[in-house]
Amino acid sequence: MGKARLSVSEYVKGIRDRKRYILSQAITLIESTLKYDQQLAEEVLEALLPFSGQSLRIGITGVPGVGKSTFINALGPYLIDQGHRVAVLSVDPSSERSRGSILGDKTRMPDLSHHEAAYVRPSATGSTLGGVARKTRESILLCEAAGYDLILVETVGVGQSETLVHQMVDYFLLLMLAGAGDELQGIKRGIMEMTDMLVINKADGPNQSTAGEAKNEYQNALDLFPPPDSKVKPTVLTCSALESSGLSEIWEAIQHYEQTTRENGYFDKKRKGQRLQWLHDTIGQSLKEMFYQHPQVKYQLKDQEQAVLAGKVTPTRAARDLIRLFQHPA
Amino acid sequence: MGKARLSVSEYVKGIRDRKRYILSQAITLIESTLKYDQQLAEEVLEALLPFSGQSLRIGITGVPGVGKSTFINALGPYLIDQGHRVAVLSVDPSSERSRGSILGDKTRMPDLSHHEAAYVRPSATGSTLGGVARKTRESILLCEAAGYDLILVETVGVGQSETLVHQMVDYFLLLMLAGAGDELQGIKRGIMEMTDMLVINKADGPNQSTAGEAKNEYQNALDLFPPPDSKVKPTVLTCSALESSGLSEIWEAIQHYEQTTRENGYFDKKRKGQRLQWLHDTIGQSLKEMFYQHPQVKYQLKDQEQAVLAGKVTPTRAARDLIRLFQHPA
Repeated sequence: MGKARLSVSEYVKGIRDRKRYILSQAITLIESTLKYDQQLAEEVLEALLPFSGQSLRIGITGVPGVGKSTFINALGPYLIDQGHRVAVLSVDPSSERSRGSILGDKTRMPDLSHHEAAYVRPSATGSTLGGVARKTRESILLCEAAGYDLILVETVGVGQSETLVHQMVDYFLLLMLAGAGDELQGIKRGIMEMTDMLVINKADGPNQSTAGEAKNEYQNALDLFPPPDSKVKPTVLTCSALESSGLSEIWEAIQHYEQTTRENGYFDKKRKGQRLQWLHDTIGQSLKEMFYQHPQVKYQLKDQEQAVLAGKVTPTRAARDLIRLFQHPA
Repeated sequence: MGKARLSVSEYVKGIRDRKRYILSQAITLIESTLKYDQQLAEEVLEALLPFSGQSLRIGITGVPGVGKSTFINALGPYLIDQGHRVAVLSVDPSSERSRGSILGDKTRMPDLSHHEAAYVRPSATGSTLGGVARKTRESILLCEAAGYDLILVETVGVGQSETLVHQMVDYFLLLMLAGAGDELQGIKRGIMEMTDMLVINKADGPNQSTAGEAKNEYQNALDLFPPPDSKVKPTVLTCSALESSGLSEIWEAIQHYEQTTRENGYFDKKRKGQRLQWLHDTIGQSLKEMFYQHPQVKYQLKDQEQAVLAGKVTPTRAARDLIRLFQHPA
């Protein structure tokens, strides 16, 4: 970071006082790989934990080109007009590779990012999906402590990022385009059945009727899906982020979901489950790191994998031999 | 088991000679919890590994009442008539709890199980899903070594069993019923997007037209899904297991899938991926067992979970504290 750190109480006070630059510095601390920073970040988080959780967390996904930034740049100001404070975080596992994030760039959301009641954070990078997950989850908590009551977590259809985001939000929204089968391009299987809402974007001008037809088709399809645990049927809506149309219907449906699931207990149950999942996911990741970083395991893993692929050894046995190296190094 | 064991070479020869009772004994060995049996089973498996893999593995799922056993009891003899040898294995995580398997019972498939070219094995039980997975995967290999070229792995919509079966088969078939929304009851979300084929069963008598309508609806819905990696679009078909109708269409579609994916390389790629997944899943399960069985972890886990749920500690920190106990017991 190359900057002097604040004290724990200065971070905590600054965030509670809703100072965006302090929030940014704290998130940078969370993202730091330095031991000292991580220790500091942990203390800040622990102090702010009682002030977190009071938000609605909304995941937004969709392939590049679907208009995610324009959508958030239109939805954000609409939500602020309704009296909310909006934070935008991004999960973008591709950003490490490409040395530049395609998500979370403030210049992509000019209207929103200049708003007093908005906070737009560029995408966290990380070498592992587990690392990105931790950073995003902890950033959500900090944003909540800073008084943001709507957290939008955007992601792109890469790797396991949607599943990850799905596990840390209350509501999951898939942005699509209508027309010519293109709407399917790049969307991974399994995402459709995760979504609480499917929004067909760019329903403007000549696209309007195609979008309307697609809406009906998808609604019919989703109605054939098994009902979700939330007991709220997934909705299909159209919007034009460009013309800022359809936003009120989207927000109404999200509010309906929140109200219903808070009443039927699902909201709280899901949140609790997510906390425990975070705990056990972190444990699982740590165990895997310990194992796969183990010198003797590292040394033998490729050979064992080759033997498995060549049908020379059963995967069960290869696993046991490797575990043995890990437990009792020769 | 309470029976004398054979030698490794006796098991191997018996299985290669297609003796069903030897195959049964070897599978019982795989399922045994005794160290000696496991050692023996491993040697048998290793010796038979070169003779495994030469089958088409088909997963069949559907909620209780959908007619899975009747379906397999009709499909099996049809496949045998086509010159195949058919083995039926079951994954039923519920069977441990209920002390009696609802799957894999030979009496449920009278026509098939009496066939010379068929082998029907009652469901393996186990205390963990990982254990059941290992036993089923290894049983598949043994059946293949015994000359069965079609392995049907049936499961019921409980817990994670479909995902598990999906990971060990080449082709995944979901059996459903038409009518009155009942078709959705009990099917978990995510299953629809896993299926290569959706079969609407009991398309006989007065149900026939409803089944036909459902077929069209589901085909339209599946066509809106993202295309699968196999590049073969999921198919919807109807059948009557009772009247043995629709079986040839089902078998044709499965053959079409196999041919296409063998040609485009997906079949082999998926098999290799599954072998590596088996290896790494086993490693992950072993690590988790080591961790969660660790006395000090066991002692503290509940408290840490409670602290996480109460918002007193972040999941990241709780995980780290528990991992520390595991690494450096006090």
